Amino acid sequence: MAARVRPISGFPEFLPNGRIVEQRALAALHHTFELHGFGEIETRAVEPLSVLLRKGEIDKEVYAVRRLHAEPGRESSEEDLALHFDLTVPFARYILENAGHLAFPFRRWQAQKVWRGERPQDGRYREFRQADIDIVGQDSLAAHHEAEIALVALEAYARLEAELGLPAVVLHVNNRKLSQGFYEGLGIEDTAAVLQRVDKYDKIGPTKVAELLVTELGLSQSVADQCVALAGIQASDSGFIDAVRALGVTSELLDAGLAELSTLVDTVTTQGLSGRILADLKIARGLDYYTGTVYETELLGHSKLGSVGSGGRYDQLASDGKRTFPGVGFSFGISRLLVPLINRDEIRASRDVPTCVLVAVTSDEARADSLATARELRARGISAEVAPSADKFGKQIKYADRRGIPFVWFPQGADSGEVKDLRSGDQVQASATTWTPPAEDLRPSIIGPGQTS
Amino acid sequence: MAARVRPISGFPEFLPNGRIVEQRALAALHHTFELHGFGEIETRAVEPLSVLLRKGEIDKEVYAVRRLHAEPGRESSEEDLALHFDLTVPFARYILENAGHLAFPFRRWQAQKVWRGERPQDGRYREFRQADIDIVGQDSLAAHHEAEIALVALEAYARLEAELGLPAVVLHVNNRKLSQGFYEGLGIEDTAAVLQRVDKYDKIGPTKVAELLVTELGLSQSVADQCVALAGIQASDSGFIDAVRALGVTSELLDAGLAELSTLVDTVTTQGLSGRILADLKIARGLDYYTGTVYETELLGHSKLGSVGSGGRYDQLASDGKRTFPGVGFSFGISRLLVPLINRDEIRASRDVPTCVLVAVTSDEARADSLATARELRARGISAEVAPSADKFGKQIKYADRRGIPFVWFPQGADSGEVKDLRSGDQVQASATTWTPPAEDLRPSIIGPGQTS
Repeated sequence: MAARVRPISGFPEFLPNGRIVEQRALAALHHTFELHGFGEIETRAVEPLSVLLRKGEIDKEVYAVRRLHAEPGRESSEEDLALHFDLTVPFARYILENAGHLAFPFRRWQAQKVWRGERPQDGRYREFRQADIDIVGQDSLAAHHEAEIALVALEAYARLEAELGLPAVVLHVNNRKLSQGFYEGLGIEDTAAVLQRVDKYDKIGPTKVAELLVTELGLSQSVADQCVALAGIQASDSGFIDAVRALGVTSELLDAGLAELSTLVDTVTTQGLSGRILADLKIARGLDYYTGTVYETELLGHSKLGSVGSGGRYDQLASDGKRTFPGVGFSFGISRLLVPLINRDEIRASRDVPTCVLVAVTSDEARADSLATARELRARGISAEVAPSADKFGKQIKYADRRGIPFVWFPQGADSGEVKDLRSGDQVQASATTWTPPAEDLRPSIIGPGQTS
Repeated sequence: MAARVRPISGFPEFLPNGRIVEQRALAALHHTFELHGFGEIETRAVEPLSVLLRKGEIDKEVYAVRRLHAEPGRESSEEDLALHFDLTVPFARYILENAGHLAFPFRRWQAQKVWRGERPQDGRYREFRQADIDIVGQDSLAAHHEAEIALVALEAYARLEAELGLPAVVLHVNNRKLSQGFYEGLGIEDTAAVLQRVDKYDKIGPTKVAELLVTELGLSQSVADQCVALAGIQASDSGFIDAVRALGVTSELLDAGLAELSTLVDTVTTQGLSGRILADLKIARGLDYYTGTVYETELLGHSKLGSVGSGGRYDQLASDGKRTFPGVGFSFGISRLLVPLINRDEIRASRDVPTCVLVAVTSDEARADSLATARELRARGISAEVAPSADKFGKQIKYADRRGIPFVWFPQGADSGEVKDLRSGDQVQASATTWTPPAEDLRPSIIGPGQTS
């Protein structure tokens, strides 16, 4: 079939090399999540439109899905469907649908693509992948899980740093109770409106935020200044408490927020991750539903990417009227993190293929020997493929070289032969049942921004 | 958010236990494919509608996708999009789009969901997962790759059998050249029309097929009988050649087909897989584009499922007018294979969670000790989570038991403690830096139809 072949804007795809990088990143996350007792779920790509639109605001971004030739009669009973735009709404639906089969607190991870009809731009895609972790309780959920999610997130990023050479991160944390309590202590009623303006702190700076608070919300200059002063506080330990107290505002909710945030920072620090966490009181997160800790993630040296992982505590992830499910979650922006790095070739795999050994073919009649050699190698976990044709060896070597395969095996019968390292040119006698490549050549390695090839 | 919670017919989802089974099956395939030098690609979920409809026939099954509130002006330049209904069409487009960056023969695997608006019924879903392998050449592709695909497919199924206890399979193979050559030797012109009827052999039986050939295609009874006699031939080795010859039909294309099919069966047998392959001359495959070997897969003892993996050789996977890309591919029907088995509980994971150890909490103040213990265990690859509350130990044990976690750790400080096997009740002194669970408890094991728990 002939086909239209231009890329569709906002729907990034990788060449095989880039996919190896993404595969390895997902494996690192998967491994971390399961070490912490998170099991995976996967939800269907579509939800009823009515479920997706309940969140409001998002309707312009939703992709509706319908059968091209839905037959009017039969189809009228079917609901309108749309592609999910995050993994939280489908998860909430999954919880309600399966609550009777799940043990709470329920811990799950989920790594799927999501779709949003936003105008594509740098770092924004129409199809992109997220990896989410959440811990969800039935009716209640202890605050220490908010520290736990921070620990899991930091350990996942540490693994990406160690295994892929990705830059280190700093987790910026705040607590909604702290901000809201502070605003309430100042006598502000519409605290959500203040948060929405403070959310622009990094983009427009403190002076402009204070201006908005005065002109749009009618706060006095001094109250606005207090809000901006709070947002300016950062500390890598409980030192933020004194800084907040120095502003002279008090409320019970503020006290609760200070205590929770300080416990979280202390817990993370005690578990050997000091320097990776920053209490950052300007972190607001746009979304209404957060009620405790909120997280954002800064990729050091790449702050232009924005937060590469975010989340928070919500007292009501889902509810069926009878039961309520509070939760705390964190979403890793896989595409946001990897697409720019891969496209700019700042991270790549050492070769384009999994293959470690190309087994040459001496003649068409002897192909079975080469197949047997490859089978022996694979039985010991060595990726091997057999040359596509019994060309002159020079041509077979060139084929391996073009694909980035490091070793070529010249068979002498099914079990033994000579194996050539294409990089050094060394060629040695070897047996297919014992020869082993250096560990670093067994599979492609990842060369990240922090490493040289 | 409250949400509609009923399942959508045709969009299967698994509980966490079922997803462990699927995860493990995908890992087994991934591992096999990469050992054979297939690299993974992933394509976007959508293609231009014009690309998807080029195949014809399928239009009723396509799910169109559009932004819910596409702004009339700006959006008019955007193409109509739809969800892919297989992985072959997107792969063909990917080949054309990236041919300059790929080395041919190009080997790839791809495991994604696809969507078809068919009426949901047993074994047919609207959203389901396939895993495809293909080898694609530029302008030419040697026939031995058709044997190679059979070898990879059989090795993949053997791994599913060994690691998941799935039933064994038999790969049924035929060759389009053989069937077409035979029909041509009989003087039949519309060979595709004959194939379409022969495709119903298993469903309606040989007598009915012969009837259709006579009544619908106007073949003489004796010619129709010859076609049906060919379709009835099966052999696990080259014995099928004599059986075909005995029918007294000759043509060059038939000879080519017989030679290719016999080479394929011999190659597979020589590589230690005799008994797993069956030359089965009624295998037709509905699709027009196959030109050589065609494959179907029978899951022994579950023939009602139909073919759980199918594919074939196509001389023109893609073409841009200048270059042509012939290929051979095989598609593993992951959902078709697993959804019925999982839903009927014929295959399941030994526990619902990855967690091997629940670290108990002796008091809220000592939670940091429990976190440290869990961290030590994880550092050695042991999945561990910390109990959600410092309840009485009995309650913490009950929590572990309900989640299927086999071990509970009672900490005495951060590094040592006692560990209890909930199944035997045995409790021993242990150090977090050295204690190791039995290998079979490290992660959930899979209990398949061939095994007892």
